[in-house]
Amino acid sequence: MLKPHKLAIIGLGHVGSAVLARAIACQLAAEIVCIDIKPEVAHGEAVDATHSIACALTPNVHVYSGGFEECRDADVIICAAGPSILPGGVMDRLTLAKENIAVIRDVMGEVTKYTRDAVFIMITNPLDVTTHVAATEFGYPAGKVFGTGTTLETMRFKSILGAHYHVDPTDVQGYMLGEHGNSAFPAWSTVSIGGVPLEKLDMFYDHETDFDREVVAGEVVNTAYDVLKSKGWTNTGIAMGACRLAKAVLYDEHAVLTVSTPLGGEYGIEDVSLSLPSVIGKDGVLKRIPLPLPAEEEELLHKSADSVKAVLRANGVIS
Amino acid sequence: MLKPHKLAIIGLGHVGSAVLARAIACQLAAEIVCIDIKPEVAHGEAVDATHSIACALTPNVHVYSGGFEECRDADVIICAAGPSILPGGVMDRLTLAKENIAVIRDVMGEVTKYTRDAVFIMITNPLDVTTHVAATEFGYPAGKVFGTGTTLETMRFKSILGAHYHVDPTDVQGYMLGEHGNSAFPAWSTVSIGGVPLEKLDMFYDHETDFDREVVAGEVVNTAYDVLKSKGWTNTGIAMGACRLAKAVLYDEHAVLTVSTPLGGEYGIEDVSLSLPSVIGKDGVLKRIPLPLPAEEEELLHKSADSVKAVLRANGVIS
Amino acid sequence: MLKPHKLAIIGLGHVGSAVLARAIACQLAAEIVCIDIKPEVAHGEAVDATHSIACALTPNVHVYSGGFEECRDADVIICAAGPSILPGGVMDRLTLAKENIAVIRDVMGEVTKYTRDAVFIMITNPLDVTTHVAATEFGYPAGKVFGTGTTLETMRFKSILGAHYHVDPTDVQGYMLGEHGNSAFPAWSTVSIGGVPLEKLDMFYDHETDFDREVVAGEVVNTAYDVLKSKGWTNTGIAMGACRLAKAVLYDEHAVLTVSTPLGGEYGIEDVSLSLPSVIGKDGVLKRIPLPLPAEEEELLHKSADSVKAVLRANGVIS
Amino acid sequence: MLKPHKLAIIGLGHVGSAVLARAIACQLAAEIVCIDIKPEVAHGEAVDATHSIACALTPNVHVYSGGFEECRDADVIICAAGPSILPGGVMDRLTLAKENIAVIRDVMGEVTKYTRDAVFIMITNPLDVTTHVAATEFGYPAGKVFGTGTTLETMRFKSILGAHYHVDPTDVQGYMLGEHGNSAFPAWSTVSIGGVPLEKLDMFYDHETDFDREVVAGEVVNTAYDVLKSKGWTNTGIAMGACRLAKAVLYDEHAVLTVSTPLGGEYGIEDVSLSLPSVIGKDGVLKRIPLPLPAEEEELLHKSADSVKAVLRANGVIS
Repeated sequence: MLKPHKLAIIGLGHVGSAVLARAIACQLAAEIVCIDIKPEVAHGEAVDATHSIACALTPNVHVYSGGFEECRDADVIICAAGPSILPGGVMDRLTLAKENIAVIRDVMGEVTKYTRDAVFIMITNPLDVTTHVAATEFGYPAGKVFGTGTTLETMRFKSILGAHYHVDPTDVQGYMLGEHGNSAFPAWSTVSIGGVPLEKLDMFYDHETDFDREVVAGEVVNTAYDVLKSKGWTNTGIAMGACRLAKAVLYDEHAVLTVSTPLGGEYGIEDVSLSLPSVIGKDGVLKRIPLPLPAEEEELLHKSADSVKAVLRANGVIS
Repeated sequence: MLKPHKLAIIGLGHVGSAVLARAIACQLAAEIVCIDIKPEVAHGEAVDATHSIACALTPNVHVYSGGFEECRDADVIICAAGPSILPGGVMDRLTLAKENIAVIRDVMGEVTKYTRDAVFIMITNPLDVTTHVAATEFGYPAGKVFGTGTTLETMRFKSILGAHYHVDPTDVQGYMLGEHGNSAFPAWSTVSIGGVPLEKLDMFYDHETDFDREVVAGEVVNTAYDVLKSKGWTNTGIAMGACRLAKAVLYDEHAVLTVSTPLGGEYGIEDVSLSLPSVIGKDGVLKRIPLPLPAEEEELLHKSADSVKAVLRANGVIS
Repeated sequence: MLKPHKLAIIGLGHVGSAVLARAIACQLAAEIVCIDIKPEVAHGEAVDATHSIACALTPNVHVYSGGFEECRDADVIICAAGPSILPGGVMDRLTLAKENIAVIRDVMGEVTKYTRDAVFIMITNPLDVTTHVAATEFGYPAGKVFGTGTTLETMRFKSILGAHYHVDPTDVQGYMLGEHGNSAFPAWSTVSIGGVPLEKLDMFYDHETDFDREVVAGEVVNTAYDVLKSKGWTNTGIAMGACRLAKAVLYDEHAVLTVSTPLGGEYGIEDVSLSLPSVIGKDGVLKRIPLPLPAEEEELLHKSADSVKAVLRANGVIS
Repeated sequence: MLKPHKLAIIGLGHVGSAVLARAIACQLAAEIVCIDIKPEVAHGEAVDATHSIACALTPNVHVYSGGFEECRDADVIICAAGPSILPGGVMDRLTLAKENIAVIRDVMGEVTKYTRDAVFIMITNPLDVTTHVAATEFGYPAGKVFGTGTTLETMRFKSILGAHYHVDPTDVQGYMLGEHGNSAFPAWSTVSIGGVPLEKLDMFYDHETDFDREVVAGEVVNTAYDVLKSKGWTNTGIAMGACRLAKAVLYDEHAVLTVSTPLGGEYGIEDVSLSLPSVIGKDGVLKRIPLPLPAEEEELLHKSADSVKAVLRANGVIS
């Protein structure tokens, strides 16, 4: 029997509502349920989105609000629950971690009352921490829970390099790996544009300033703060990233994207979730690709691991 | 010479930023400039949107922020500048009118320094008031300035009737006319679903409660307040409506949509902007359709006219 | 467990291959299997389509060729098997009927070895005859087999009226009913544009020649022959129609479209398949809408019924 | 003043009609004119396509047929005029070249009566030969005429490698260069998947048989013949490739794609058109990227050059 696809969005704040709009635009599912601890917010977003659907540019998607029991027959769950980092830094990173670990434990406790079948895509920050909690504490099948991870950093990286060399960012090949956040790093060894390797880009593409690794790596991290400071939150980019991942799942695309999952000894790292290129399909992460990294990049990956582990430990998630 | 399309969005608050996301999803233009009195907000929205584009689900649209001089070569301008009605009503309707008339006069003063060629789509509330000011005080060519008007009410109307009878809202035929706001009314004489006229809908379509005109008309107005109260603002629906209109312009679609323009004596009404079905193409409103209305609907249109005129008069826009 | 959607296309001639291209463009399914009595044709179309997918404008849909056993887990089946009417008329209508009744009996015999769950959309001509055979002789659940019917005539009708009045055809409200073919007729009582009823269209919309029912009705039928004679076959329009229907099914849209199913006594008609407005969702035809028709239109419907019945009888499908 | 985009398609055979359907699906332009030496074929395709548009899944694009004078205000022209190679080889390559050089001279003679502004995308085979004629004999601005070239081979290459390693072909990085046809070759030095270089792919991705350069390179060339032999022509893949290029032009995307243009001394090659990665934007080819190639690949490029030059010389295009 035909089962039209169903998406559940948990947390309808700035990020979740942007995910909702993008999911409708991407025609991800026939049914979208909005779940929030403030049911009226979920309701308001669902009704507003429903109005948008009457105008024929999208299929007639059924959008509504409900409780966690609506996850029972969901195919994909995208979770943007919990507070975010705010500009001006009223909440430091450890405090945020503590609070959102609790939020995610609540969410996963509720979700797993109804399903362990849906693919669960985590957006809540600190991303690698919440992903690790969700993926390791609730008996969810391996690979079916993953975090958006450095999907967004990779998009930003391509965007910045594309603008630098005046080319379409989707033609920039290259990945950001590691932690979603400050210790994310470009895997320079993976970078090329139109078949031209990194060190020769300046020879072939227009540019205003010569390429500088440090500058670009810094820009990728800083652009997040730039957006945060300028508009008060970030949501458009991450919403697209999450929907890109959901599309890879729903179409079983086997797309290679950098998402966060608990590592299983790759590069000697375990007991922590981090982003590596991963093959994404109908069962979530089908395969992690521990691609060969030069020593200095592997070292950066270990630093990322340490950074996330410190937070996990401080919160008693790992010992 | 090929001129890739350019869209300018003025005002990047909740509505303008939703327009931006939807415009990218709709592939409206090759270039989108964000203009706001807070340049850092325009900047933040542009950068966040730019990140979203690196992921290949959309064309490589160039999104950036700038000043009004960027309107010079814009093909379409969507204006969502100025404050909105807030839940809890800290600002009453007349106060909002006064404030936004000033905002729109500033905006149009700036825009017309650079262009009277672009099609200008107004979203700022009170919609019919701001549209009237923009369309009558700046020598802009007739038809090239229009307001989203009851496009949104019509979408809500279809949505509510579609849900009532369990059918796709795009298969609901019917229009809301008059003022964008409290005095908007359903032109019941235009309503049918799948060829079945209004009075026989209950006979042919599934429904839980029998059809009641008053109830449905009330729901259309109340759903706006429901969204506003629940999430704090409305943006998803109106963003789609504005982009639907922009698409009709950019593809010269000759679509029939209910937008607000200064009436020119239709039904004996002038000196006020209101929504009627209108043919939308590359020059904006190509034609208004003063469709035949039964007496009671014509009366409601006059009430709408009076309601808007009262605000125009109170602010000295008309005498 | 997530089941990505699967579409089966039976018959990869001019129509089936156009359905394939359009289905990919519409992102209908994660998996598309091509089935043809000439396996190499199915193979060639699948491989060519697969090449088209590598360029990122569409999701990574898995397209391949196979046998009828591939219908086992299909969600939707679109059937364009069998020969078509050719320009120059080497095959008359009755001969085509005889041949394609045999083709469809073979197809349905094969399909029903594997599934009666998939929604089955018939395109093969004479459409109402093949639909009747498929829907009545194989124990397929009612509503799950239907023919594209006058979906295409309705599109043509809107197209012609839209061109006549210089408006977007999707804003033309109105349906063609009855037989898919010569006896299809416009249900004039359902026609309006932008809320303006048929008899007043000339008053409100631009037009070069005054409206004439006979002329327009004739044009709708003749445009099919015009296309057939000009390019040798018709495929683009019908491919879109079939994919529109499949989308309504896969998104459970409850769209109202005119498709062919065995009537069950509506207007006193039974033992024949004809097109009426119908609500389309995940189970196929959820509801037929025997909308109130004026006497002369009801008469045309009876003529259509007689026309199709004559072919059904001549081939011993009904007695 | 807003100028909605206009696309002209020259030659409405199997390829041109597939371009038309795909162009509508991609929403490339507001207006599409179909031009063919058989005006009735152009007419039939335009009318059939027009019917498809009435169903709201696409914007209301105006599709019609006309003469070369319609190129006057076209933004992009896609040319698929002239006969194709047929399975069974009734026409050998040199004969085809001779015939299509004449066709293209006629086409360009007509087109340049009306415009040298439109970006002209060539599909007619032998591609590099016809492109060279069009780009060098008619005073068309450099970069504004280019051939689809190895865009299609690159798509096939990604498709084959993606299938081999069970990943989304759009995540395969790599280019086919040189002649569009038998002497096209993979630039192995540009190949990677998910950051993993060519020689380590077997270590990281699932596969049934170990990777073999010769086999894959052969498959890319042979898959064209496989399609040709199986279905009688190839059109779906190339139609997507051409529309991908047109999109890059219309959105000024600066996409990096492998198209054919007259080389200007790159690798010491001139007087011939061949495909190299090129930056595509609103003025066509903005930049060719003569990326660093290992000696054996550069040699293959020279072989491709010789192969095309032989045909150009045999037809007196170059001396």
